[in-house]
Amino acid sequence: MSETKVSLRGKKRTHNCGELRASDINKAVTLNGWVDRRRDLGGVIFIDLRDRYGKTQVVFAPQHNESVYQVAKQLRGEDVISVSGKVEHRPEGTTNQNLPTGEVEVLADDLVILNEAETPPFPIDSDIDTSEDLRLRYRYLDLRREPMQRNLTTRHKMAQVVRRYLDGLDFLEIETPFLMKSTPEGARDYLVPSRIHRGKFYALPQSPQTYKQILMVSGFDRYFQIVKCFRDEDLRADRQPEFTQIDIEMSFIQEEDIYKMAEGLVKTLFKEVKGIDIKTPLPRMSYDEAVTRYGSDKPDLRFGLPIEDVTETLRGSEFKVFESAIQSGSLVCGVNLPGQAGVSRKQIDELTELAKSCGAAGLVYFKVVGDSLESPTAKHFSAEQLKQLHEKFSANNGDLILLVTQPRGRIYQTLGLFRLELGKRFGLIDENQNALLWVTEFPLLEWSEDEKRFAAMHHPFTSPREEDVVNLDNGLKEYAEKKRWLSENSVNKARARAYDLVWNGNEIAGGSIRIFHPELQQKMFSCLGISKEEAEKKFGFLMEAFKYGAPPHGGIAFGFDRLVMLFTGSKSIRDVIAFPKTSSAMSLMDDAPNEVSRDQLIELHLKVI
Amino acid sequence: MSETKVSLRGKKRTHNCGELRASDINKAVTLNGWVDRRRDLGGVIFIDLRDRYGKTQVVFAPQHNESVYQVAKQLRGEDVISVSGKVEHRPEGTTNQNLPTGEVEVLADDLVILNEAETPPFPIDSDIDTSEDLRLRYRYLDLRREPMQRNLTTRHKMAQVVRRYLDGLDFLEIETPFLMKSTPEGARDYLVPSRIHRGKFYALPQSPQTYKQILMVSGFDRYFQIVKCFRDEDLRADRQPEFTQIDIEMSFIQEEDIYKMAEGLVKTLFKEVKGIDIKTPLPRMSYDEAVTRYGSDKPDLRFGLPIEDVTETLRGSEFKVFESAIQSGSLVCGVNLPGQAGVSRKQIDELTELAKSCGAAGLVYFKVVGDSLESPTAKHFSAEQLKQLHEKFSANNGDLILLVTQPRGRIYQTLGLFRLELGKRFGLIDENQNALLWVTEFPLLEWSEDEKRFAAMHHPFTSPREEDVVNLDNGLKEYAEKKRWLSENSVNKARARAYDLVWNGNEIAGGSIRIFHPELQQKMFSCLGISKEEAEKKFGFLMEAFKYGAPPHGGIAFGFDRLVMLFTGSKSIRDVIAFPKTSSAMSLMDDAPNEVSRDQLIELHLKVI
Repeated sequence: MSETKVSLRGKKRTHNCGELRASDINKAVTLNGWVDRRRDLGGVIFIDLRDRYGKTQVVFAPQHNESVYQVAKQLRGEDVISVSGKVEHRPEGTTNQNLPTGEVEVLADDLVILNEAETPPFPIDSDIDTSEDLRLRYRYLDLRREPMQRNLTTRHKMAQVVRRYLDGLDFLEIETPFLMKSTPEGARDYLVPSRIHRGKFYALPQSPQTYKQILMVSGFDRYFQIVKCFRDEDLRADRQPEFTQIDIEMSFIQEEDIYKMAEGLVKTLFKEVKGIDIKTPLPRMSYDEAVTRYGSDKPDLRFGLPIEDVTETLRGSEFKVFESAIQSGSLVCGVNLPGQAGVSRKQIDELTELAKSCGAAGLVYFKVVGDSLESPTAKHFSAEQLKQLHEKFSANNGDLILLVTQPRGRIYQTLGLFRLELGKRFGLIDENQNALLWVTEFPLLEWSEDEKRFAAMHHPFTSPREEDVVNLDNGLKEYAEKKRWLSENSVNKARARAYDLVWNGNEIAGGSIRIFHPELQQKMFSCLGISKEEAEKKFGFLMEAFKYGAPPHGGIAFGFDRLVMLFTGSKSIRDVIAFPKTSSAMSLMDDAPNEVSRDQLIELHLKVI
Repeated sequence: MSETKVSLRGKKRTHNCGELRASDINKAVTLNGWVDRRRDLGGVIFIDLRDRYGKTQVVFAPQHNESVYQVAKQLRGEDVISVSGKVEHRPEGTTNQNLPTGEVEVLADDLVILNEAETPPFPIDSDIDTSEDLRLRYRYLDLRREPMQRNLTTRHKMAQVVRRYLDGLDFLEIETPFLMKSTPEGARDYLVPSRIHRGKFYALPQSPQTYKQILMVSGFDRYFQIVKCFRDEDLRADRQPEFTQIDIEMSFIQEEDIYKMAEGLVKTLFKEVKGIDIKTPLPRMSYDEAVTRYGSDKPDLRFGLPIEDVTETLRGSEFKVFESAIQSGSLVCGVNLPGQAGVSRKQIDELTELAKSCGAAGLVYFKVVGDSLESPTAKHFSAEQLKQLHEKFSANNGDLILLVTQPRGRIYQTLGLFRLELGKRFGLIDENQNALLWVTEFPLLEWSEDEKRFAAMHHPFTSPREEDVVNLDNGLKEYAEKKRWLSENSVNKARARAYDLVWNGNEIAGGSIRIFHPELQQKMFSCLGISKEEAEKKFGFLMEAFKYGAPPHGGIAFGFDRLVMLFTGSKSIRDVIAFPKTSSAMSLMDDAPNEVSRDQLIELHLKVI
């Protein structure tokens, strides 16, 4: 530290750094904040003083106050100061229209240096060219940057809007435990060793699922929580070991009630945070349609390019590639890229590469010229087939039809990815549009080839549709006969009372109507290959609760981190979390996780092996 | 399950069970809820249908609808039903003024049984005579009881009021991590083993202390969070392994700013939750005064009985017990119990026993009769001493002065407990009063006889008063000379910029102005016997953050569980927590903690020993 006199107390601020306007001119004010920028101009020192609320220009002039000017000469960026002076109009021609305080400056009469700062490892600017690791290491400095301040402020605002909305609808915010029972089903639990109970462990919640259902059994009727959840998974770019969920559950309701409540919430958020009016009710699309038309269970509907299945149209052609694929059960599907018939050979090659990177083996194209289709492969198809192809895609002159062939189990994913890439590459996505929709009628179960059994697509508490319970009954009969699960078992036909809310291709919420009868819950467990004993051990308390009068109930959960990321236009959820972990689940700022003392482990009856 | 047809869907409710009034008569309505009580009267079935919002009487009359009546005959308590019918006025003389819906009843036209209930292990009544263990085991049923519903509803309301208040003052709610670094200092951390980083652990936060300070360094200026904290301690009656804190931190402030903000919060809570106007600013009392006058750092000021020190008044008497105690450095202190001079010998014996149970060796009493003091011991004191004793206690005719002698280090605790017991026993406590006060000027450090060093009374980040920094400097010099810490070291004189908020003898909040200069923080660590290396290892990131421009800051935290307990008049914090743990940190409902699979432990590189 230099010899500057640093004080423990400065004068209390009268205003924040974003507050002063022309109407404050001649007022004596005190500001507290950080030295954002310092300029020395003709023997006068100018600084921008910064706090959370904004920036204000402060002037230190030797002719006005020599001693204060001398102190100011020592100021460096990020020093913390308390400065007092008179608000003045900035001289003609020097006002800054981009700054709310840009008409005024404070002519300093007094200056107290509250803390000095070393030179930061990176500049505290909106845009910085710094590795994320360095930003995370010095997170306290990174968080001073305006985009981070704005992101966390928006996050705060969104949380308050959500709570006010739900409070207004008689929802109760009820805290559920963080130290709960480990019932791994799906993701891995984070465990917490018990000191008092040797060899026993708590688990951190992957979600408050069982507790919120218990609260419905308790008659709380409408519950919500903005709550941390934990999953010990190998992290992908967009995942964190701890994440925040807006968790909502309601009793005596059906799907329509959840839709209405959630649409109101989204509408309110858009209005209050972005000033945008969202039209409700939102459109709905079945899972089947989403997958077969858009190749995704979270379709981005800001643009078209729907997938068409032309397998039957093209069946029986002389085009070997398609015909042998069709014969072996594959499909031929594609999209119609409007107005791109003029692509060059080189561009076609690029599109082919793109299709391959999405999983296709190759790409067949047809340029739409008037009423006819032109392509090196066109000669292998009958005139009638080409006519029907033209019709199927409702093609217009100048369009470009792109086809691939693959087995049913893979082609939709391929074309889903391809469609998104085409949308980006050809500028088809209107960034100002907000395409929200419900995806409904999810399958109840999905086959796990590894485990040779079915897993819950949503979770084991999701109700099948009433008319599909018979599929569970049939499936269990088939299982009893075959003594093992086969992927073609009848349970595969059961659809769930589950729904996802999708915004511009992102799943922002998901939920379901729950099972509320112990018998049906037991049936579901059986379909998942969970034995009565295992179900009893893991979920016995929930099954038992259901015996004492469980109401019909259901809910939905929003991924809050992702929602804030999308609302703030951030690139990563790490930019909307104050202290995120890296992809190896580390905190670079404080070095967590770290080693603990031998004593701590002995108390927990644990040994590292 | 009986043969009753249970349905997956009932009719959607048009009203809740607390809503119908005389103005709704003749409306066709549908209610959903639980069968609270059933009575069969003269061939007609009456049930009270219950939900979170209230109860409504439903009538099943065979002459009105025979088939519905037949279904209703099967109804049992806690069955979940959907019932439709017409709202009617209750017959003359049968209205219930105690029930908001007591003027009406619903004559049932339709009944769907949504779920049947087994007989609950205890009645769902407001008052039940059931062990707490059984209540916790069947928490979902316990939570149906009206007092529990009311408690959690009040808790919800308080959380919203707190957030709205702080949001209105520009505080930002910022989430801090749950998976953090283990830095045990004081209580034991709950640890979370890392799977990816063998042998390393996260810790669950005991409080977000370091993070909120980091947020101040980041310029967030005003932060709050209603947040779970964790301490792995041997539980006392009023403690939980996980508890909730209203955590608040501000920059560029002094004590007065915290007081004002916190008083506003408390005032708002009292007004909005209890409809009570609290007068602010609240009174303040130094720690020294609280201890010497009330024998507690959280004095209950709903009644008087201040402690008076009469050591000097009585020094030199012929009463051996006191004189030898005084000679050996003990104090003689006591309280004046108004109007109790008429106590019997038996009552004096009881009071003596009470004093002993509070830690005293014995009790000396003086009955105030007119201007004189009567007591078997009176003859051992001079007339002047008795006169001064009388004056010291401002005694009135009929009062009873009670004295004890003990060393200075123990007498205040003894008399603090004794005072509280007297207050209860003699009905001196006005239960309708709300005595709030600040206790200030806490000692910075307290001597640990076990460890032969000083520990932080609040926490190591609490700032000493500016004028007391010199005591740290002197103390460190003395330590350097003596090479070891002694209890009479100068640091013992340092007072902290710490404060507690006390309500009727309960500490409801505590906080401090923090150290914000790295040098002073290092000095504080030295006084705590924390080496530079240890400080660097544990709090290096905070010390480093302070080098880049930390603002003056401070904060306060409210114990939210206890606050809700006090606001709801509950006897235990377990009655205001949805799913609490027992005193051995177990959840009786779901049996957490539990054993986990071998695979889970192997993945975590752990072995139970």
